Amino acid sequence: MSYQFQKMPEEKVFKDPVHRYIHVRDQLIWDLIKTKEFQRLRRIKQLGTLYLSFHSAEHSRFNHSLGVYEIVRRMIDEVFYGRPAWNDEDRPLALCAALLHDLGHGPFSHCFEKIFGTDHEEYTQAIITGDTEVNAVLSRVHPNFPEEVAEVINKTHPNKLVISMISSQIDADRMDYLQRDAYYTGVSYGSFDMERILRLMRPTENEVMIKESGMHAVEDYLMSRYQMYWQVYFHPVSRGGEVLLNRCFKRVKVLYEAGYEFKSLPTYLLPFFTGNVSVKDYLRLDETVVFYYLQEWMEEDDTILSDLSSRFVNRDLFKYLPFDGSIITIGELTELFERAGIDPEYYFVSDSFSDLPYDYDRPGSNNNRKPIHLLTRSGRVKEISTQSVIISSITGVNRMDYKLYYPKELILNIKDLEVKGAIINLLNELN
Amino acid sequence: MSYQFQKMPEEKVFKDPVHRYIHVRDQLIWDLIKTKEFQRLRRIKQLGTLYLSFHSAEHSRFNHSLGVYEIVRRMIDEVFYGRPAWNDEDRPLALCAALLHDLGHGPFSHCFEKIFGTDHEEYTQAIITGDTEVNAVLSRVHPNFPEEVAEVINKTHPNKLVISMISSQIDADRMDYLQRDAYYTGVSYGSFDMERILRLMRPTENEVMIKESGMHAVEDYLMSRYQMYWQVYFHPVSRGGEVLLNRCFKRVKVLYEAGYEFKSLPTYLLPFFTGNVSVKDYLRLDETVVFYYLQEWMEEDDTILSDLSSRFVNRDLFKYLPFDGSIITIGELTELFERAGIDPEYYFVSDSFSDLPYDYDRPGSNNNRKPIHLLTRSGRVKEISTQSVIISSITGVNRMDYKLYYPKELILNIKDLEVKGAIINLLNELN
Amino acid sequence: MSYQFQKMPEEKVFKDPVHRYIHVRDQLIWDLIKTKEFQRLRRIKQLGTLYLSFHSAEHSRFNHSLGVYEIVRRMIDEVFYGRPAWNDEDRPLALCAALLHDLGHGPFSHCFEKIFGTDHEEYTQAIITGDTEVNAVLSRVHPNFPEEVAEVINKTHPNKLVISMISSQIDADRMDYLQRDAYYTGVSYGSFDMERILRLMRPTENEVMIKESGMHAVEDYLMSRYQMYWQVYFHPVSRGGEVLLNRCFKRVKVLYEAGYEFKSLPTYLLPFFTGNVSVKDYLRLDETVVFYYLQEWMEEDDTILSDLSSRFVNRDLFKYLPFDGSIITIGELTELFERAGIDPEYYFVSDSFSDLPYDYDRPGSNNNRKPIHLLTRSGRVKEISTQSVIISSITGVNRMDYKLYYPKELILNIKDLEVKGAIINLLNELN
Amino acid sequence: MSYQFQKMPEEKVFKDPVHRYIHVRDQLIWDLIKTKEFQRLRRIKQLGTLYLSFHSAEHSRFNHSLGVYEIVRRMIDEVFYGRPAWNDEDRPLALCAALLHDLGHGPFSHCFEKIFGTDHEEYTQAIITGDTEVNAVLSRVHPNFPEEVAEVINKTHPNKLVISMISSQIDADRMDYLQRDAYYTGVSYGSFDMERILRLMRPTENEVMIKESGMHAVEDYLMSRYQMYWQVYFHPVSRGGEVLLNRCFKRVKVLYEAGYEFKSLPTYLLPFFTGNVSVKDYLRLDETVVFYYLQEWMEEDDTILSDLSSRFVNRDLFKYLPFDGSIITIGELTELFERAGIDPEYYFVSDSFSDLPYDYDRPGSNNNRKPIHLLTRSGRVKEISTQSVIISSITGVNRMDYKLYYPKELILNIKDLEVKGAIINLLNELN
Repeated sequence: MSYQFQKMPEEKVFKDPVHRYIHVRDQLIWDLIKTKEFQRLRRIKQLGTLYLSFHSAEHSRFNHSLGVYEIVRRMIDEVFYGRPAWNDEDRPLALCAALLHDLGHGPFSHCFEKIFGTDHEEYTQAIITGDTEVNAVLSRVHPNFPEEVAEVINKTHPNKLVISMISSQIDADRMDYLQRDAYYTGVSYGSFDMERILRLMRPTENEVMIKESGMHAVEDYLMSRYQMYWQVYFHPVSRGGEVLLNRCFKRVKVLYEAGYEFKSLPTYLLPFFTGNVSVKDYLRLDETVVFYYLQEWMEEDDTILSDLSSRFVNRDLFKYLPFDGSIITIGELTELFERAGIDPEYYFVSDSFSDLPYDYDRPGSNNNRKPIHLLTRSGRVKEISTQSVIISSITGVNRMDYKLYYPKELILNIKDLEVKGAIINLLNELN
Repeated sequence: MSYQFQKMPEEKVFKDPVHRYIHVRDQLIWDLIKTKEFQRLRRIKQLGTLYLSFHSAEHSRFNHSLGVYEIVRRMIDEVFYGRPAWNDEDRPLALCAALLHDLGHGPFSHCFEKIFGTDHEEYTQAIITGDTEVNAVLSRVHPNFPEEVAEVINKTHPNKLVISMISSQIDADRMDYLQRDAYYTGVSYGSFDMERILRLMRPTENEVMIKESGMHAVEDYLMSRYQMYWQVYFHPVSRGGEVLLNRCFKRVKVLYEAGYEFKSLPTYLLPFFTGNVSVKDYLRLDETVVFYYLQEWMEEDDTILSDLSSRFVNRDLFKYLPFDGSIITIGELTELFERAGIDPEYYFVSDSFSDLPYDYDRPGSNNNRKPIHLLTRSGRVKEISTQSVIISSITGVNRMDYKLYYPKELILNIKDLEVKGAIINLLNELN
Repeated sequence: MSYQFQKMPEEKVFKDPVHRYIHVRDQLIWDLIKTKEFQRLRRIKQLGTLYLSFHSAEHSRFNHSLGVYEIVRRMIDEVFYGRPAWNDEDRPLALCAALLHDLGHGPFSHCFEKIFGTDHEEYTQAIITGDTEVNAVLSRVHPNFPEEVAEVINKTHPNKLVISMISSQIDADRMDYLQRDAYYTGVSYGSFDMERILRLMRPTENEVMIKESGMHAVEDYLMSRYQMYWQVYFHPVSRGGEVLLNRCFKRVKVLYEAGYEFKSLPTYLLPFFTGNVSVKDYLRLDETVVFYYLQEWMEEDDTILSDLSSRFVNRDLFKYLPFDGSIITIGELTELFERAGIDPEYYFVSDSFSDLPYDYDRPGSNNNRKPIHLLTRSGRVKEISTQSVIISSITGVNRMDYKLYYPKELILNIKDLEVKGAIINLLNELN
Repeated sequence: MSYQFQKMPEEKVFKDPVHRYIHVRDQLIWDLIKTKEFQRLRRIKQLGTLYLSFHSAEHSRFNHSLGVYEIVRRMIDEVFYGRPAWNDEDRPLALCAALLHDLGHGPFSHCFEKIFGTDHEEYTQAIITGDTEVNAVLSRVHPNFPEEVAEVINKTHPNKLVISMISSQIDADRMDYLQRDAYYTGVSYGSFDMERILRLMRPTENEVMIKESGMHAVEDYLMSRYQMYWQVYFHPVSRGGEVLLNRCFKRVKVLYEAGYEFKSLPTYLLPFFTGNVSVKDYLRLDETVVFYYLQEWMEEDDTILSDLSSRFVNRDLFKYLPFDGSIITIGELTELFERAGIDPEYYFVSDSFSDLPYDYDRPGSNNNRKPIHLLTRSGRVKEISTQSVIISSITGVNRMDYKLYYPKELILNIKDLEVKGAIINLLNELN
């Protein structure tokens, strides 16, 4: 039998707290899991700095990737198999894309990418199609197969149905991470009835639809997603950790560019300073490496770098205040910080975040998201927000939030009492 | 109010998946959690290499330490408070010892300590009584207080009751880790009725006893413990990871002592090579640092070091076989490995482990464990194994298990066919 | 110490799957639980006919009543105690009202009350203030105390804060039943973070408010409630059971009034036929009695009564169809059923149900519900729908649903082919 | 396709809190569930009087029967299918036997059968092979099929493998009830890793074996069973309920035989008084009927009957004391009760219970239980207690427990102070 359909003599299972067990019978999947690029995902946390507000959120992307694979496997084997719109020849493609969809994530992607201009989606593609163990395994299926898998992940593949299984507004990726992140943080918000949604999914030519009787279950899923964003993912304390780490990276880059002489050179980061990053360079980076450098930087002579990295490592975070996003406020405070001798570039950060829980491409919307479609018994198709007042209430509603971050003690220590008073007054007005 | 009884204006809580919430109202506890030595526990996994067999076991000792604190806090505030044998003046001592009991753990303690001769219990004491942030906080209670906390942890303190809350055969430490490790691995074995055990705990002069009606609940707890050891903690795959890591450390030490010139010197390890380790040196080490070095070693010219570290990082583990522990078998195989040109020092490892689920100091026993005592309604005290045939069946029964670890492919590649055949035959006999 | 504050020497606990344990320390509460009127609640299911669609929903009102008590106890002892707006003298009043709030429920209240004109709220009051064991226990507190408890339950008591703990849009009653009914049915919809809501509840002069930071948790709670109504409580299959039972009661009443001679007289129901029901008569009725009569009615000569009761007992339910609520449709079908010789009074039932998930008394609203109020740090009060687009989207939105119920086989057996065809056509149009 | 393999066009599911969903695709199973004999199981509690000590244990045998079916279905479809020792032609037989194994249970079987001499196993057979709806459905498979199903249930069928799936020391029946009863009571003892046991079950010619690697999981399962017996099923309070109910039945029978004139004759019980019970008579009895009669008996003139039934209905249970089972004690107390004018036949009950958690037919054992067999990789078979010290410690160990039940207040009210004192002294000695 050809490699992509080859079964191992006995099924292997991974004990998993979210899905009970993850079942692997395909040799192809087993081989992919064993590659060093996939194993590297164990050294990258699924939720970056979130452990700073939810101490138990320490799980890795390895963890989550297995979960997405398992959901796609169940979709296919328990629901899609045998239905006219599903071609079981696409099973290996769907499973591989599910397993590998996060392969290009780096350490603390959100802050890292902003400073070094890398893009984890591009690197996912580069790792899959480059000179890697993953590529060698996938190529055994067919020389074009790695490219195909990459195309599914970056959504350019012609098979829209398979794409929608892995990236859409109700896909295996989200269904896994909502439940998984809820499990590890210990919150109840991420719970929804995945079993019911799976049972009611129907493959169609271009997308996965949900049987109309599943409308309330989808509603509940979208609410879970909404709650997880505002109650967990956007927690201001862990955003404060990101802010700090971002300033660390920025400082180190600035110092490097200015010719600063490091006591200990962060070797693995050098390609990122120069912007000439090979796949191999990229893969060498993970969160253990970043943490090692952070601990080295704590000993550097540059006081900004050593202060920021020490703050991050020891969780001595900035204080935060909500504000209305006004540029005037930022401007005034920036000036006052400068007058006080506190570099606002590193010690005064305004951070905004926003969430659009559900939307779709329609007149007036600024996005190309695909709608969630319900399928009636008679075969009609309905966009879900037309069926639910609750979903309708959040459709296209982009909610923004703004926070200011700054180190409280530095302000309390300002010598110039007039400046100090002005800063404190302005901040008090915000609170 | 004196510092050790000072309450914060509002209770702080940590969301915790095992205990729902961890409640902190004491300023002293809050200050300890914020110290960098306590924060460092976030960078040390609770279960070392266990993630190699249970992928979701990625939680840290920080996590567990908060849990032990919470259980002791509940013991005191919900059960002991107001009972004659409990003196609430000991509350700060018990809480601090609970929180800090694992403070001296290093990265992958089990393998690390064997090679470098460090001892995490000694370092717990050293950190608490040395020049650290933790010491500064504890000293605010009383100059002697750090010493007292350390004495509770190393079991030399005169207050045996407080010691038994944190280290005995049914203590807060075990009750937390059994449940926590079960939660993160996703197994069901760690479940027992802690709520019932807590309700039935009674402080007495020298130890915590359990009301007689809790006998079955304790039985169930001991069975959970037993199952966790054999089904989870002793999993041969993760033991294989330990074996590999142990050999990495060994090789690096051997190379250093032999004057090998490292491409990149593992600076933070140097004090451990020379055996002259300060508290500061010790604290600098965590699992991110070890992982960084492992990745550096993958690039070293020494093929044994680069092979072993690469195997560990990329989870390319040795194969294992059960055997009967016989020295003859080991001897024969060692010789054959040598003849095949595979260094048995690094590539042929026999590993044994054993567990004694419950025992106590009595004629014929070789240990000084304190028994679990049941307390009858009329005030009599009974050792638990006299009341339960199940506990009796495991009391003092030390179960051993032996495994041989070796790299399968290296054996398959042996050129000398006679030697190769002899090795394979011997291994097959074991299986 | 006076009776209402008297503690038992040792706390009693009930193992409860929802709250882990229910804790009783007050003699008063213990005495109430032992009364026969409270024990009677074991013979009345919490969810009536819902077991016909969710087979595992077999729990009793006894169960739920203990749960509501436990939540109120925790509110008081863990959150309210010591806060200025809370007077701990009101504790017994709040606990008793919580425990007894459902005392007057009868068997299958919803269908029963429609036919026999009884009202469970009136009977709750009558039982509490009448010649009962519950009354005797409450009177030991104070001769007026039963009256006071009844006033809290029927919301006429001057203490609005205590009333809002037990009946408001976010009260102990709902918080218990959402979680409990979810637990027994096995659905995930009823989950919300009660621990967080409890921690953020604040007693004020006239009501319980929620700290502003709990806004998302309340949102989640309201969504749980909404989902439970549409996914569980309104399940059309169990509504079909209610429809049948309602027609059974109706038939039996019609027969009695027409002088029909029962083979076996339903003695306990006689007072309900004549409308002259004493508290003692009322208490004699429970679901075991109703089921006994149903089984007797299966043997009666009246074919309608024997058919309907047999259908209910053996779960041979009517078929249902959604429709738009139009009176014309009902009229046409009623006439056709009559022509076909099927009595539409019993065999053709239109049923409507509606839910208003959240609302409050305001211009244009037709209800006197009290709003859910958020309390800001600075002490301002905000109505919750002004803070949440999701809650706003369901505020005041009364959703209706209509179903037609009829026995499929009877229609298939209609002799007059023209009438049969006309009925089938009309029903098909609805579908 | 023949009826026994006929699939419905769409799978039906039952939401179940223990197994998430119960899946039915076979028309045969669906038809059986709809029969009135199977629906009757909704009116019989799985755990009889256990709700008197665990208030939430109110679930029915209907509930459990679906669960056993689901486990057998999963065994077959997920594990056995395709293995040489499994013949898929036996699937309908196994599924039907699983679903129907408890069909003959009556109300509160344990006490009822002792008085009226009925046997639920005989009635299971009688219902399956008699003139019933269940029989009609089963006969559609083959005229002999009902008989075959009954033979599997009563263990006389030649297919020992199928029998062992449903009744052995590790069967679907026990695996369901341990988990289900734990779920409903809210205790943690019933948890074990069923998923792992299922995965490791292997069909062999005459029985289901477990792969050797599942030894610890079976150990854990046997411990769960052991704990459930001693912590839940044998709870002395609910045994006290059984004792009362038993005495009610006894009294009513004695009265009937003595020609007592009942105010209201318990019609459905008459055949049981005379011992001439048809299947139809038997099926008419359920717990709602028994409860109706109990409420009628509360009004009878016979003070013993009215007192006992009123005590049971209102949960005014006897007090209990442990004792050593000595006949002398019982004799002395019986005589004293008589002298005090309290009829010991009804008001002084000694009750014993015992459990043998695991055993098998071997020299010296008095039972014909089949051992649990482990299957090694090389195909050898090992009896489990030879592999586990824990199981070995409970093998063949029959643990007994004795309780005395009596009404405390009656004793306190004894007029003859000498007799009263003697009774109280004797009871105190026991305590």
